[in-house]
Amino acid sequence: MDRNSVNWYGSITAVVTPFYKDGEIDINSYTQNVELCLEAGVHGIVVTGCTGEAWALTDREKLLLAKRTVEVVRKRVPVISGTTSISPSDVIALSKECIKAGVDGIMVSAPYDCLPSQDEIYEHFKLISDELKFPMLVYNIPSRLGVNLSVQLMDRLAELESVVAIKQSSKDYMDVFNTIKTVSDRLRVIVGYSSNRGLPCMALGADGFTSTSDLQVLGKPAVELYNAYAEGDMVRARVLQELCFKTASAVSAAGTFPASLKSAMNLVGRPGGYPRRPLLPVAGAKLEKLASDLAALNLKVSL
Amino acid sequence: MDRNSVNWYGSITAVVTPFYKDGEIDINSYTQNVELCLEAGVHGIVVTGCTGEAWALTDREKLLLAKRTVEVVRKRVPVISGTTSISPSDVIALSKECIKAGVDGIMVSAPYDCLPSQDEIYEHFKLISDELKFPMLVYNIPSRLGVNLSVQLMDRLAELESVVAIKQSSKDYMDVFNTIKTVSDRLRVIVGYSSNRGLPCMALGADGFTSTSDLQVLGKPAVELYNAYAEGDMVRARVLQELCFKTASAVSAAGTFPASLKSAMNLVGRPGGYPRRPLLPVAGAKLEKLASDLAALNLKVSL
Amino acid sequence: MDRNSVNWYGSITAVVTPFYKDGEIDINSYTQNVELCLEAGVHGIVVTGCTGEAWALTDREKLLLAKRTVEVVRKRVPVISGTTSISPSDVIALSKECIKAGVDGIMVSAPYDCLPSQDEIYEHFKLISDELKFPMLVYNIPSRLGVNLSVQLMDRLAELESVVAIKQSSKDYMDVFNTIKTVSDRLRVIVGYSSNRGLPCMALGADGFTSTSDLQVLGKPAVELYNAYAEGDMVRARVLQELCFKTASAVSAAGTFPASLKSAMNLVGRPGGYPRRPLLPVAGAKLEKLASDLAALNLKVSL
Amino acid sequence: MDRNSVNWYGSITAVVTPFYKDGEIDINSYTQNVELCLEAGVHGIVVTGCTGEAWALTDREKLLLAKRTVEVVRKRVPVISGTTSISPSDVIALSKECIKAGVDGIMVSAPYDCLPSQDEIYEHFKLISDELKFPMLVYNIPSRLGVNLSVQLMDRLAELESVVAIKQSSKDYMDVFNTIKTVSDRLRVIVGYSSNRGLPCMALGADGFTSTSDLQVLGKPAVELYNAYAEGDMVRARVLQELCFKTASAVSAAGTFPASLKSAMNLVGRPGGYPRRPLLPVAGAKLEKLASDLAALNLKVSL
Repeated sequence: MDRNSVNWYGSITAVVTPFYKDGEIDINSYTQNVELCLEAGVHGIVVTGCTGEAWALTDREKLLLAKRTVEVVRKRVPVISGTTSISPSDVIALSKECIKAGVDGIMVSAPYDCLPSQDEIYEHFKLISDELKFPMLVYNIPSRLGVNLSVQLMDRLAELESVVAIKQSSKDYMDVFNTIKTVSDRLRVIVGYSSNRGLPCMALGADGFTSTSDLQVLGKPAVELYNAYAEGDMVRARVLQELCFKTASAVSAAGTFPASLKSAMNLVGRPGGYPRRPLLPVAGAKLEKLASDLAALNLKVSL
Repeated sequence: MDRNSVNWYGSITAVVTPFYKDGEIDINSYTQNVELCLEAGVHGIVVTGCTGEAWALTDREKLLLAKRTVEVVRKRVPVISGTTSISPSDVIALSKECIKAGVDGIMVSAPYDCLPSQDEIYEHFKLISDELKFPMLVYNIPSRLGVNLSVQLMDRLAELESVVAIKQSSKDYMDVFNTIKTVSDRLRVIVGYSSNRGLPCMALGADGFTSTSDLQVLGKPAVELYNAYAEGDMVRARVLQELCFKTASAVSAAGTFPASLKSAMNLVGRPGGYPRRPLLPVAGAKLEKLASDLAALNLKVSL
Repeated sequence: MDRNSVNWYGSITAVVTPFYKDGEIDINSYTQNVELCLEAGVHGIVVTGCTGEAWALTDREKLLLAKRTVEVVRKRVPVISGTTSISPSDVIALSKECIKAGVDGIMVSAPYDCLPSQDEIYEHFKLISDELKFPMLVYNIPSRLGVNLSVQLMDRLAELESVVAIKQSSKDYMDVFNTIKTVSDRLRVIVGYSSNRGLPCMALGADGFTSTSDLQVLGKPAVELYNAYAEGDMVRARVLQELCFKTASAVSAAGTFPASLKSAMNLVGRPGGYPRRPLLPVAGAKLEKLASDLAALNLKVSL
Repeated sequence: MDRNSVNWYGSITAVVTPFYKDGEIDINSYTQNVELCLEAGVHGIVVTGCTGEAWALTDREKLLLAKRTVEVVRKRVPVISGTTSISPSDVIALSKECIKAGVDGIMVSAPYDCLPSQDEIYEHFKLISDELKFPMLVYNIPSRLGVNLSVQLMDRLAELESVVAIKQSSKDYMDVFNTIKTVSDRLRVIVGYSSNRGLPCMALGADGFTSTSDLQVLGKPAVELYNAYAEGDMVRARVLQELCFKTASAVSAAGTFPASLKSAMNLVGRPGGYPRRPLLPVAGAKLEKLASDLAALNLKVSL
């Protein structure tokens, strides 16, 4: 593999997986959403990440979504496929299928639930890296998985052949700061939570950020946050940062992510669909509040 | 179901799942370990909990282990089978199989990875409770799963037909204190981390505790901690508490639980076996330190 | 000094400092409150601790209160005088005055605001210990002072000549557990927050606990919590633990400690008086709620 | 007072208070350090803040330092005088003296040690504001004082007549983010920890930052961090941010702040002097490590 060909940057979207009410995947809505993201100008697409409710999908379903995304995107931007699992052999097996299906990269988090040590996590990624030799985005999200990749560990992971990028979604500011400082000479650094950190992390030298709630509700402005910064227009970037933050805050106040994001998408006429259990759609007073919060941002809302 | 027939209390063991080096279940070692626990006098056995590396097992394997445990235990003590999954329908399907296999109760944690709200967790348990109508132990372990059952939620769960007991492994002391105060009129309260909380939580009115590292390394003394308290012998209880703590501390300093527990069991001649990836057996200097720590507790150790 | 003559144990009260509305010390109310504590059967009295609003008192006032307490108590129980300051020379100067005034011990916390290292804290206590050679209670309350005495440091402090006891008010359960385990062979261990930890910490081997809200509102039952445990009557101890907890919870829900304690004392006809600024007395709806919470505990309340 | 005349921004230094070995203030070294800061181009000077070991100074000493600073600075940049105390009347008394001495503003933190409620803090600042009617910088530093000014409270404080600026040194990123968003329309927002947050917070719209370790060790580059950003030179700003971070990290690894800052200043030939007890100068292996860390940054170091 050629590390230098990997050019992941900018506003990268992790897309939702719209389900029908009965829990089946609504592949048409999925396709439509991917197309809307491309129209907004995103610089990359992540399939079956947390935003895609990866925890509720079988491997067969993850592969199906990867395939469809590759078909829709047609190489216009990189497609990165989430293949996280607790067992490294499960990660490898699914990743190989996704690679065959034509994705540009795979995204892998630390194994969850088992609270592995930093060394065990390293061995996990090393096994996967050695087996795949394919561009990999390592994804750190300790608030969800209960396990953190330390900056020291990232520094070691940066030496693995397949590891070309890191998505840092730690909520600890110093971890984010140190990640950018420590590995951005060797890895693409994409930060999570664009709606509150997009601009400051670009200032610190990140390559991009993942846009989820803001992008899939607002469309273009979430991408423009990146472009405004890249063009040196800090005043406009701050205005867009504020808009993205208000949007994401409205979504997150309404319920559990990404169920609340799906409800918000539905409210503004985008194809969010239903979540799978145990998550539940936003309803009642919370839905009304969400609708009025979005309307206050000049979005066209229909309940 | 008859809630009053449920008599879960005392020193309850969550058993390990010994694997061969290649990752296959070593069912003979498993059987032998269950028998050793019974000989030690445990008051109940939990199958395929965290200690059993539930995250690394398929549903088929979990059922196999439940069946074997039922056969070995022959109703001498309650057998409680872990059937946690993110999707409530998966929990229900596996639980039904385990119930058919003859277990006395099922143990279910909050759905992980998806960070559900307290209401979504309630609906998750309600769906399962309504469907099963079978004694259920609700298991709270926020440090591992990243999701906490608040005491207010436990109070609501206590009203569900199938919920007869709670296993509280929160590391927040006030949560443990308030759980005992709030639901012990309706639920059996079993606390986690016997090695540091066994005695004080019994003093506060808990019904029992789960013994893991201490019991499966020490055997009888971990059960005697309960018995000493029950007999009002606080001086002896304190000595045993100290022994259990030193044992569990040695295990936990050596590596990731329960891989380190398995290594400790092997050192003292008990059937621990290997962990599954991503966990790794304790090795090298850490194994030597573990051996000397255990030897310092007058355990017969062979490296 | 003779370490063996120090016999600090049981239910020890940290007394409030009643002020008039204009901020002056109300020495008659103070005296009356000390007498009420003695009538309740307390095993010791702490003057000018946090409960006494030490932060709002001048050294002259602290000495005045120490003197009065010595006069009132007349050696019936030990009187321990809080002399904490940031500068060790200030601690030494005030302590010498209090010793001259006849107190039985002094209580000193880590220096606050300056975030000292563990070594700097050790040197602070060593300087004081060497200079005074008088029984000292080291007081750890990290949630208030922002600095924690680690258990390793306590182990070192236990070797200092003057250090005879530790008051552990860390909210971290494992710190409390390890403190009792580690230093109770050499030091008297008194735990804070009797209302939620009194009973379990006695079970673990503590020598006593500080009773503040519970004792100065309830009187005798807060002392009986200790006595019931000491007599082996766990059922009665649990009932008293519950009563103490409900009392302290009502007080702490009403406002900032100890202003809320003073308001509660006033409500039940005890001499609480006013707090000094920046603390404010409980008022309005919160005072009504406090009154009804206390009435619900069968206390005679007059608004 | 005229709020509009207040123009606090840029790189503002909180200066150390050099002491002789015996603890007396070394006023010549103090003067020399203030002059060095002015030469470096700082946009403002804070006297008797945390960096100045305010906790170890009497009111008389604080006033002396304020007076000297006013004399040295001669209106070239604003001089802001720290007058924090637990009692609002103490704050008012000292502030009035400092105002008479000619300072341009006063800096006041929340009252410490007494864990006041948000309402009590508001009343504290209101009393001071009403009494002084003089430009006030409200200083939030929860990691040191154990009390946090919530963003909601800052929003209320922004309405007080004397409150013209906030210094936000919370370590919680979202608090910093929300502070800038919420009050920068009415208050000057100065962020703490320039060495890791200077650049990103400027990007978010802060007015400036306090430079402590970096400025008083490096001199000019810590001010240039601000200037580079202001001129839109992000590449140079990032290089300077990195230099400031490495400097501050070396200082903070060596010991307790600001004792370690003073030792670092002494190493590079600046007038740091000694700290007061309980803080101790850096010594031994830690001093050697500090020297080599600073030398690695191309600073001329003599042990």
